Amino acid sequence: MATIDVVCIGNAIVDILTRTDDDFVTQNGIIKGAMNLIDAERAELLYERMPPAIEMSGGSAGNTAAGVASFGGRAAFIGKVAADHLGRVFAHDIRAQGVSFDSHPLENDAPTARSMIMVTPDSERSMNTYLGACVELGPEDIETSKITEAKLVYFEGYLWDPPRAKEAIRLAAKLAHDHKREVAMTLSDPFCVDRYRDEFLELMRTGTVDIVFANEDEIKSLYQTDDLESALEQGISDCKLLIVTRSEKGAVVLSKSERVSVPAIEIEELTDTTGAGDLFAAGFLYGYTNGRTLKDSAHLGALAAGIVIQQIGPRPQVSLKIAAQTAGLI
Amino acid sequence: MATIDVVCIGNAIVDILTRTDDDFVTQNGIIKGAMNLIDAERAELLYERMPPAIEMSGGSAGNTAAGVASFGGRAAFIGKVAADHLGRVFAHDIRAQGVSFDSHPLENDAPTARSMIMVTPDSERSMNTYLGACVELGPEDIETSKITEAKLVYFEGYLWDPPRAKEAIRLAAKLAHDHKREVAMTLSDPFCVDRYRDEFLELMRTGTVDIVFANEDEIKSLYQTDDLESALEQGISDCKLLIVTRSEKGAVVLSKSERVSVPAIEIEELTDTTGAGDLFAAGFLYGYTNGRTLKDSAHLGALAAGIVIQQIGPRPQVSLKIAAQTAGLI
Repeated sequence: MATIDVVCIGNAIVDILTRTDDDFVTQNGIIKGAMNLIDAERAELLYERMPPAIEMSGGSAGNTAAGVASFGGRAAFIGKVAADHLGRVFAHDIRAQGVSFDSHPLENDAPTARSMIMVTPDSERSMNTYLGACVELGPEDIETSKITEAKLVYFEGYLWDPPRAKEAIRLAAKLAHDHKREVAMTLSDPFCVDRYRDEFLELMRTGTVDIVFANEDEIKSLYQTDDLESALEQGISDCKLLIVTRSEKGAVVLSKSERVSVPAIEIEELTDTTGAGDLFAAGFLYGYTNGRTLKDSAHLGALAAGIVIQQIGPRPQVSLKIAAQTAGLI
Repeated sequence: MATIDVVCIGNAIVDILTRTDDDFVTQNGIIKGAMNLIDAERAELLYERMPPAIEMSGGSAGNTAAGVASFGGRAAFIGKVAADHLGRVFAHDIRAQGVSFDSHPLENDAPTARSMIMVTPDSERSMNTYLGACVELGPEDIETSKITEAKLVYFEGYLWDPPRAKEAIRLAAKLAHDHKREVAMTLSDPFCVDRYRDEFLELMRTGTVDIVFANEDEIKSLYQTDDLESALEQGISDCKLLIVTRSEKGAVVLSKSERVSVPAIEIEELTDTTGAGDLFAAGFLYGYTNGRTLKDSAHLGALAAGIVIQQIGPRPQVSLKIAAQTAGLI
């Protein structure tokens, strides 16, 4: 009997968000719209240069866990913070959202990870992530009971960046499958796909991963094609369920036997795209693990994504449960 | 020759902002709409209980300094942070806004102050402030050159809460007056006025303070009257310039010879009143120290206040200079 809907595994990150113009992004050599990995020294330099900022808990899979909980789902998170101020902030925020989080913080080593996020006038976010304590995530951090008690394990492709997290994921996936649970991943970022294409394809083709979330750029990058249809076809031949988000064009969900599309929700004002993909995954997974159809699950994903891009920051500041009830989706 | 328009002195605080319902405020014994002083233990307890939050630099006079700089004014800030993470955040944010900030951080003692702010559905903010390192602010922190090079010294009444800050203020006021500069204060909060009524009146009546900012509740509290007109009359008899903000009713400015009123600006949606008074002071002081009339200065104050209450948090996330230019005010 599952007591958790979704257990999310990812880099535990606090976001440092600010607005800049495009020149700031260009002049500082930041790849726009991407997750740029940086070291401690560059983190200091960029922080010194960046405008006043807002700190809020983030991290891709952490945002998804928070989203599932905001829908009223039962979510858990596994990720590595340090025993420092930002680590306490991360732990407070995710627990206060109702997510179960018991990972041991790292003592006397690298600090909690932070991502400096520049939001440009077009509302696109460019991330600059110093992984800090996240590089210590390993198989010893996988809480067996959380994996076996969850209907589904979800992890971020970004976990291929730190050295030992992939071992943690392989262990979690094996545990999950041994207990007849499903495993889902997000491809995270087109550049991340570029770094780990062969490994991601291997995860899919060996059945280590059952369900794949991607946006258009990521799925095209995975199959190194400019043709979305071709990427979708190849994608669903390599996994059991493929969910591809397409920004204002909505999303498409493919199973071996079915293909459904949903539109994006109408929004009043695009504010900040940070967390859009994470929250789509949250809505979809909340629906999927609670017996909804693929189409209804995708509508929940579109709702959550549409809400988070109308606010600053990657975690919903309103109750997604109430929003979904108001929209007649649950 | 002044090289600074306004030097602001205040408690250096990082805000921890969240939305709660009214029940949370009531059940936790928080005085709604007020600044509630708390100790370290209660700070831990409230943090544990509060929902996910956003961290951003705050502090009343710090917000005003940031606002003056956002208008393009030359601002400095004096206040006590600790040599810790939140202290670095505070220093980064205020400097990145263009404010000169050189106060020495406190080493190996109390941590940087934080205020847990609950924003209720009516957009009212209730603050819970742990003063931490702020209690160490004293006369030794007054940088003589900053005071003598500034056209005006501005401080917050909240500084009467920590034990030695009042000595710092008396020193700064003397230095300023010796150099023919003006001294302004905000009454900060009706409960703060209640705690220090006699001392605030003494500051005004001895000419230690020339200019007083207050909202309706504060000026009424100062003179223990429910009659605004009576409070205004008594107020301007005790100082040279009195600025009283009246929320959606705008503001009134009284000098010994003049009385002007300005309306509040029209807003689309009230989001969070945190920082409204601080930003009114910023706009007014930017205008006043740059040779604008009382009326024009008050319009700048109303603009800044109107902008900050339409966002989350107490410091403007847009350029007030551009906003004022767009509104045809500068």
